[in-house]
Amino acid sequence: MLLAAVALMACSAGARAEDGYNLWLRYAPLDPVLAADYATQLGEVVAPDQTPTLRAARDELVRGLTGLLGTAPRIQNESSAGHVLALGTPQSSALIAPFREELESLGEEGYLLKRTRRDGRDMLLVASRSDIGVLYGTFHLLRLLQTGTALDELTVHEAPRVRLRVLDHWDNLDGYVERGYAGRSLWEWQTLPEWRDPRYTDYARANASLGINGTVLNNVNANAQSLAPQYLDKAAALADVFRPYGIRVYLSARFSAPIELGGLKTADPLDPAVQQWWRDKADEIYQRIPDFGGFLVKANSEGQPGPQDYGRSHADGANLLADALAPHGGVVMWRAFVYAHDVADDRATQAYTEFAGLDGAFRPNVVLQVKNGPIDFQPREPFHPLFGAMPRTPLMMEFQITKEYLGFATHLVYLGPLFEEVLQADTRAGGKRFTVAQSLSGIAGVANIGTDRTWSGSHFDQANWYAFGRLAWNPDQSSRDIAADWAAMTFSPDPAVVQPIVGMMMASREATVNYMTPLGLHHLMARGHHYGPGPWVDGGPRADWTSVYYHRADRNGIGFDRTATGSNAVVQYAPEVAATYADLTQVPEALLLWFHHVPWDHGMASGRPLWDELVGRYSSGVRQVQAMQDTWASLRGRVDADRHEQVAAFLQIQLREAQWWRDASVAYFQSISGRPLPAGEAPPPHPLAYYQALQFPSAPGDGR
Amino acid sequence: MLLAAVALMACSAGARAEDGYNLWLRYAPLDPVLAADYATQLGEVVAPDQTPTLRAARDELVRGLTGLLGTAPRIQNESSAGHVLALGTPQSSALIAPFREELESLGEEGYLLKRTRRDGRDMLLVASRSDIGVLYGTFHLLRLLQTGTALDELTVHEAPRVRLRVLDHWDNLDGYVERGYAGRSLWEWQTLPEWRDPRYTDYARANASLGINGTVLNNVNANAQSLAPQYLDKAAALADVFRPYGIRVYLSARFSAPIELGGLKTADPLDPAVQQWWRDKADEIYQRIPDFGGFLVKANSEGQPGPQDYGRSHADGANLLADALAPHGGVVMWRAFVYAHDVADDRATQAYTEFAGLDGAFRPNVVLQVKNGPIDFQPREPFHPLFGAMPRTPLMMEFQITKEYLGFATHLVYLGPLFEEVLQADTRAGGKRFTVAQSLSGIAGVANIGTDRTWSGSHFDQANWYAFGRLAWNPDQSSRDIAADWAAMTFSPDPAVVQPIVGMMMASREATVNYMTPLGLHHLMARGHHYGPGPWVDGGPRADWTSVYYHRADRNGIGFDRTATGSNAVVQYAPEVAATYADLTQVPEALLLWFHHVPWDHGMASGRPLWDELVGRYSSGVRQVQAMQDTWASLRGRVDADRHEQVAAFLQIQLREAQWWRDASVAYFQSISGRPLPAGEAPPPHPLAYYQALQFPSAPGDGR
Repeated sequence: MLLAAVALMACSAGARAEDGYNLWLRYAPLDPVLAADYATQLGEVVAPDQTPTLRAARDELVRGLTGLLGTAPRIQNESSAGHVLALGTPQSSALIAPFREELESLGEEGYLLKRTRRDGRDMLLVASRSDIGVLYGTFHLLRLLQTGTALDELTVHEAPRVRLRVLDHWDNLDGYVERGYAGRSLWEWQTLPEWRDPRYTDYARANASLGINGTVLNNVNANAQSLAPQYLDKAAALADVFRPYGIRVYLSARFSAPIELGGLKTADPLDPAVQQWWRDKADEIYQRIPDFGGFLVKANSEGQPGPQDYGRSHADGANLLADALAPHGGVVMWRAFVYAHDVADDRATQAYTEFAGLDGAFRPNVVLQVKNGPIDFQPREPFHPLFGAMPRTPLMMEFQITKEYLGFATHLVYLGPLFEEVLQADTRAGGKRFTVAQSLSGIAGVANIGTDRTWSGSHFDQANWYAFGRLAWNPDQSSRDIAADWAAMTFSPDPAVVQPIVGMMMASREATVNYMTPLGLHHLMARGHHYGPGPWVDGGPRADWTSVYYHRADRNGIGFDRTATGSNAVVQYAPEVAATYADLTQVPEALLLWFHHVPWDHGMASGRPLWDELVGRYSSGVRQVQAMQDTWASLRGRVDADRHEQVAAFLQIQLREAQWWRDASVAYFQSISGRPLPAGEAPPPHPLAYYQALQFPSAPGDGR
Repeated sequence: MLLAAVALMACSAGARAEDGYNLWLRYAPLDPVLAADYATQLGEVVAPDQTPTLRAARDELVRGLTGLLGTAPRIQNESSAGHVLALGTPQSSALIAPFREELESLGEEGYLLKRTRRDGRDMLLVASRSDIGVLYGTFHLLRLLQTGTALDELTVHEAPRVRLRVLDHWDNLDGYVERGYAGRSLWEWQTLPEWRDPRYTDYARANASLGINGTVLNNVNANAQSLAPQYLDKAAALADVFRPYGIRVYLSARFSAPIELGGLKTADPLDPAVQQWWRDKADEIYQRIPDFGGFLVKANSEGQPGPQDYGRSHADGANLLADALAPHGGVVMWRAFVYAHDVADDRATQAYTEFAGLDGAFRPNVVLQVKNGPIDFQPREPFHPLFGAMPRTPLMMEFQITKEYLGFATHLVYLGPLFEEVLQADTRAGGKRFTVAQSLSGIAGVANIGTDRTWSGSHFDQANWYAFGRLAWNPDQSSRDIAADWAAMTFSPDPAVVQPIVGMMMASREATVNYMTPLGLHHLMARGHHYGPGPWVDGGPRADWTSVYYHRADRNGIGFDRTATGSNAVVQYAPEVAATYADLTQVPEALLLWFHHVPWDHGMASGRPLWDELVGRYSSGVRQVQAMQDTWASLRGRVDADRHEQVAAFLQIQLREAQWWRDASVAYFQSISGRPLPAGEAPPPHPLAYYQALQFPSAPGDGR
């Protein structure tokens, strides 16, 4: 007892246990009865450790079981125990070798979890054709334990549905994270390559637990310096740390790097000297990082250089880099997020216009990276029309995990439903069911990760990293199920904790749509930093960086007509989809004002006129935040005090800001519509000018 | 035993114990024999808790004793035990009341630690006239235990020698820290005022443990927004957290705030509307923060606005703010760090020229804040000539704890000896011994604190925060003794650990002087970010931002002639000091090239010519880093592996950069002197052009 007390004191002096650092890998002690039952069923562990990846799997198993079951597992080279937990590949483990055939169909990253009897013994296998599959399987098994899942009759065959599962870090070399709300960049370039912060390993563990297999270290608004030798040495040190966890390093490449680094006069993709420069650069990289993943490129977009500077196409640009990488097996992720300030077309149409015609023009190792919607990571957008429209080109989804347009890290918004809504959208490509998920060769997420102790800027934003990773592995999963796993692993497997938390999470995204941009409105955030409401934003360098461009509200109505009478953006979708969106009677109300300009008195499904509905949605968003507060308050005592207090404070911020969004938006739109507030709706406490005058020059994450 | 194992596992899953977060307040278990002895001597604890500060003292005592002695102390309201540890003031504790008279001389912040017998009992008193004194005394007692000091015959009378003991945070509102090498700003403006991160409390604890009693939250290159209501609400929340720990909040004030925030047309200090604006602003601040400390101002310096923009003096500017703060008891800390780009005078002379004649012109609540040396926080400077030169003006020392010019956070440089050297410098003001320390009403340190888990960017940089605080309390302490305390508290009280670490620390500053700027050289760092060597820096916007301005090397010799044949800066010192510095036979070699331009073959004390000595110093700096590495390697196993590994990696970076400094500097100066390297000196491995071509556009902490 004394020893226990001393031990506890020693470690309580050491650190707060519940500061969020351990993410969903807390491995907190299970209910003792359940723990004892698991311990019996698992028995002795046979886990080979010939490779760094197998060692990582074994170490994670030890860490997890020790935490969950309260006692370190017995690790044996061989075992004659009645119950055996066996990890490995057919090559590394005699216990796994007999199951070689069953593993054939699972590919290089898949794994098998199987409870079986053999030679009179009860065995639980974590088996794969590859070491990394063993690690993935180990994390899967630990998840089953963390969520209290029964192991009887366990048989899991898992293989990733998507090949490229990548985090995009918008991290600058000086440590600033563009659109980052979770501290500085994790990458401490100043202390690399000598110092390999243990946090890099924990980052890799967390990603491997989800099956994420790539990371783009630097911002798509790229600095050519990241390709200079001194930074390649540093990136190589990170690659060394990540390699055992199956994570490849990628770099954002600045298209003009041959000029800036190489001293060439041009970056023209058809210039032989430019081609040679990239080939040499690729060789130089692969010498340091033999499993380098490849390049991510933002070209001819928002001021970035690109092939069009030389009259060449995006395909010319992408193929230039692809040819340099191809001998080494690298990939080019070429972003389709382009729009030009000198093009009068609806911004929503420009990526499709630019790229759809290039289908088939790219090298096989080019993947086109397309944002989930046609504008820019709004609280709700229809799916991007390029999905399903480029059958001969590998496409990659780009989600934004960091919540640039969804309240930053202080708003509790679970993005799982947003991801799921897009992934399950039916493109009707070829005239039949063909979901966005089916169209994908890769999924990228703009990371919400930084040096904040919680990693993600808040406890609940960890769920967005988590959900992204799970859906990247298998885009057909349910975001609700994922939320339940996350809540159980992160807070407690007690259903009295999990259920209310899942309820909060599942309602949270719609709440945010309501208090920010209901009914298909979009891009109404304040200019630049996107912090808070700015529906009045007008003027400035370009029309499509204003709010009035998107909402088009006037005395008579509101909304962006994207039908044939307007920009006709609908025709970029497959005919059946286009017909639905274009038809005022069929378009989902959630996208009404995305596709239609509608009179203020347009009748809504609720029976209310549009104006009343709009105001009502804003107010209901605020009430939904209050409901989250109530739910959270009811969990006091069931969730540790440290995290409970922080989440409660953040919900208070969210409420303040939701109210601000509602009041400012109602004040503004009322100044346009000239209509009275619906009965029971409180007038905004300040005049419109008050909201318009608020300035936040130091809001975080602003692009610079 | 099982319980102990489970407890340890639970917490080992929770966090790394030795990541540096706990600073010198680790309270690691003492040797069991010593711990038992202390426990007996201390006995029961009587510690009143009527106020937040007394509660903080009691909580710290419990935390400290629990960690150090392995068992929580028994806290009683009264005690009849044979041994009693009594905390409190005469008002709050009947056990302390009899000692009222002994406390009289200790002032409002002083305290008494006293072992005594009374009424047949052995008592240890932690007593003060004020609650904050009790807290300071508690930290002192804990330090005695942490360092294994015998408590027999203990009698400590302590009172601070300096009134204002302040950290200056150069933190921007967007979280960027100018000249910060330890992550982002601690202040999370985005989540204040709702969320009060527990780290704010730990920051306050660490400062209170040193007696620091003020913190300037924002950068001296100030943003007027920090005085806007929304930010005052946030600052008030921080003030609430800090108040129990005796720490007052100050703000850097932008002199033009009446224009930027108030919409006035001018910030002229003699304009009645401007005066009214500042009075109103002060009232607004004190309404939120009743114990607000006051303003820090950088005016008419490096582009900042100031009174000279309106033809007024620095005294006019400072008095404007002083008058606004005076009714509330606030202070203006006005910086003397000024130099003008249109003034041809030696930059080292300009602050004195500007301010010395204003002695007596300031309001009583103005304190003039003077950097330690006349240039800018160099590895070595003579003391600033304003110290001792303004007898009618309260002066405040400004040290830079963050190592802008000393290798950032990756170089192990203990600044204690630098601080001590300046504080103990004899100004000879009035023709008699009068140290810089004696001239001070306040000490400010530019903080090296950020969100890095170590707080300071490295484990050893914590020592610089620590030494600053200890010297601010009592500037006549020995930096070696302070280093020993710090090493014992931070690593281990084992002399086999403390002695080698103190040896490393005490040699480290001279090592850095040697490999960067030996023999009085200064300001040879690369332009802007000051990362790495740049002795060749020339041109650009102003001469006094170049290296060649300072070293003045030519074919014949090197050094800045500041005697009568040169800029005559020496005359700003008292006559005896001036005579010493001006005399080539008396000037300390450490300041030789600061004050004199000397031929390359000038004979040095070593018997070597200057050129040989210079090259030798550069090389010896590198060898001194190697010696630190050897010492550190010998501590493997005596220092926990986590911190040992990180420090070793940082020393490797330091060695790489020290070698770079040596090679680049030798290559450059050889190109000027045209002299052969002394025998045994290796030629730089690259030509000079290689070093000159290196670019570090993303070096951390660069002023923007």
